[in-house]
Amino acid sequence: MIQRLIEGITAKDAPVVVGLDPNISFIPGFILKKAESAAEGDIPDYCEKENVIAAEAVWQFNKAITDAVYDIVPAVKPQVAMYEQFGIPGMIAYRRTVDYCRSKGLIVIGDVKRGDIGSTSEAYARGHLAGTGFDVDFATVNPYLGSDGVKPFIKVCKEHDKGIFVLVKTSNPSSGEFQDVLTGDGRAVYELVGKMVREWGSECMEGVYSNVGAVVGATYPEQAKILRKLMPHTFILAPGYGAQGATAADLSGFFDADGLGAIVNSSRGIIAAYKKEAYSKYGEEGFADAARAAAIDMIEDLRGAIHGARTVWNTGR
Amino acid sequence: MIQRLIEGITAKDAPVVVGLDPNISFIPGFILKKAESAAEGDIPDYCEKENVIAAEAVWQFNKAITDAVYDIVPAVKPQVAMYEQFGIPGMIAYRRTVDYCRSKGLIVIGDVKRGDIGSTSEAYARGHLAGTGFDVDFATVNPYLGSDGVKPFIKVCKEHDKGIFVLVKTSNPSSGEFQDVLTGDGRAVYELVGKMVREWGSECMEGVYSNVGAVVGATYPEQAKILRKLMPHTFILAPGYGAQGATAADLSGFFDADGLGAIVNSSRGIIAAYKKEAYSKYGEEGFADAARAAAIDMIEDLRGAIHGARTVWNTGR
Repeated sequence: MIQRLIEGITAKDAPVVVGLDPNISFIPGFILKKAESAAEGDIPDYCEKENVIAAEAVWQFNKAITDAVYDIVPAVKPQVAMYEQFGIPGMIAYRRTVDYCRSKGLIVIGDVKRGDIGSTSEAYARGHLAGTGFDVDFATVNPYLGSDGVKPFIKVCKEHDKGIFVLVKTSNPSSGEFQDVLTGDGRAVYELVGKMVREWGSECMEGVYSNVGAVVGATYPEQAKILRKLMPHTFILAPGYGAQGATAADLSGFFDADGLGAIVNSSRGIIAAYKKEAYSKYGEEGFADAARAAAIDMIEDLRGAIHGARTVWNTGR
Repeated sequence: MIQRLIEGITAKDAPVVVGLDPNISFIPGFILKKAESAAEGDIPDYCEKENVIAAEAVWQFNKAITDAVYDIVPAVKPQVAMYEQFGIPGMIAYRRTVDYCRSKGLIVIGDVKRGDIGSTSEAYARGHLAGTGFDVDFATVNPYLGSDGVKPFIKVCKEHDKGIFVLVKTSNPSSGEFQDVLTGDGRAVYELVGKMVREWGSECMEGVYSNVGAVVGATYPEQAKILRKLMPHTFILAPGYGAQGATAADLSGFFDADGLGAIVNSSRGIIAAYKKEAYSKYGEEGFADAARAAAIDMIEDLRGAIHGARTVWNTGR
């Protein structure tokens, strides 16, 4: 599966994933208004009216964004919490979004951050990666429980040619509380996790990279440089660009000598671009066009970072 | 909410939570057979026939187990992965289970192990604890992302009188890979997490204990003793009794001088008791009676451990 992601990035020359985190505050009023009709007539059991409306709005919003960007980016990353909050109708909207994006040729990274142990982790893995419940191409996984939590995902990835991205160094301000703690031998916890990701990943290589990737926040360029060296065959999913403050310059250390090795996520910077001054000319009605314009700008910006990375690698670092 | 849990434990003299992890292999054949009728007739969109059948079997199984134990235990802990694997029908079965258990007066601990950051963590918290999607009394939370991931849950707990149990030292064999790593000052990572849980918990005390609890595996009695001292006002959810190998003797260090401070989970040891030699007389048809008998035996066993804990506290330790 990682090979398919790399092909997508190369074909579109865009190491960019659009985060489909449809916070209700991002959704234009006219879509919310139109979604009310979804709650007319009989509503199935366990589907509250307000959730049916919210889920319909989320789905219509996602569909428009997807139609506007699917030809210029290789991947999308729906954040399942934004759907789960609306219960059953929300999970239906998640599934519709995933299925629709895949039908448009996009790689779908389910940002589910699941993690448990043994048969429970395997149930999550099957539910999200084996298509028994939902069917994404990659899922994000939380490593706090160790190998018992991650290996069942790897087993399912091997069986179904899927992949995972394991949280290593997350993009948020407090990620250092546990991840940066120095251990007895002077290495940080995130380095130990990175070392384990490398080991887990060696079991399912596909070309130069493994189907076991890592999440490394774009907001932590110094740690990323350490991790890039520690995990040379680990593809990095980098959140934190744009709204969380990371710039293209912060990202040069994430890429390898071929300008590969990482895919950068932006969520609200793209899907809510119409709310920003720079894209205000599109207006609320033009939210999808604004998203496309913001995605194009991000791609251009990152091409610069990749060029920088190639230069650094080629002059030795 | 922690006060309600303590009242339930005290009233039933049973620090026991029944894990509703209905692995399909635990469900008697006659229930699976009967569940097939649920897939007759029209099936809603996004509900595959096999998932509809599995979810119906899960629900019927859970209902019978709940009816058999609700008067002797204070709480149940459905493990959401076992439902999520069956997609939309599975999530409906989760919701039915949660709602039914609450209607029987049980405290419901949603074992969801969610964790993200900021508005995303808040979406999970609202979805599971504020009743916007699902409505449990406590949720389990993964702390790997630090305060950014946990505080949004605490905010929602305060608003809705709910609680969380944060993973500190998990019961599985590989939990030490990251959790036991010694930091520069000689303390293990799980101790740092425990210290943070204590701090987070100080924000939402309810009597002696906080609505922010901790998950500490019954399989690690030595670490539990350290954590019990480090987190004197933190209620502990202890998985790992029975099937994972922990005994009542391992649990004495989890309780305080009043015999409170912990609730012990057993999942397959109770819900699949009919498959064990000791309860084989009940047969497959009597699976719910076998579960009740196993729960009674576990409660008796733990009363001994609590007595042991009281003795240790009262003689000083």
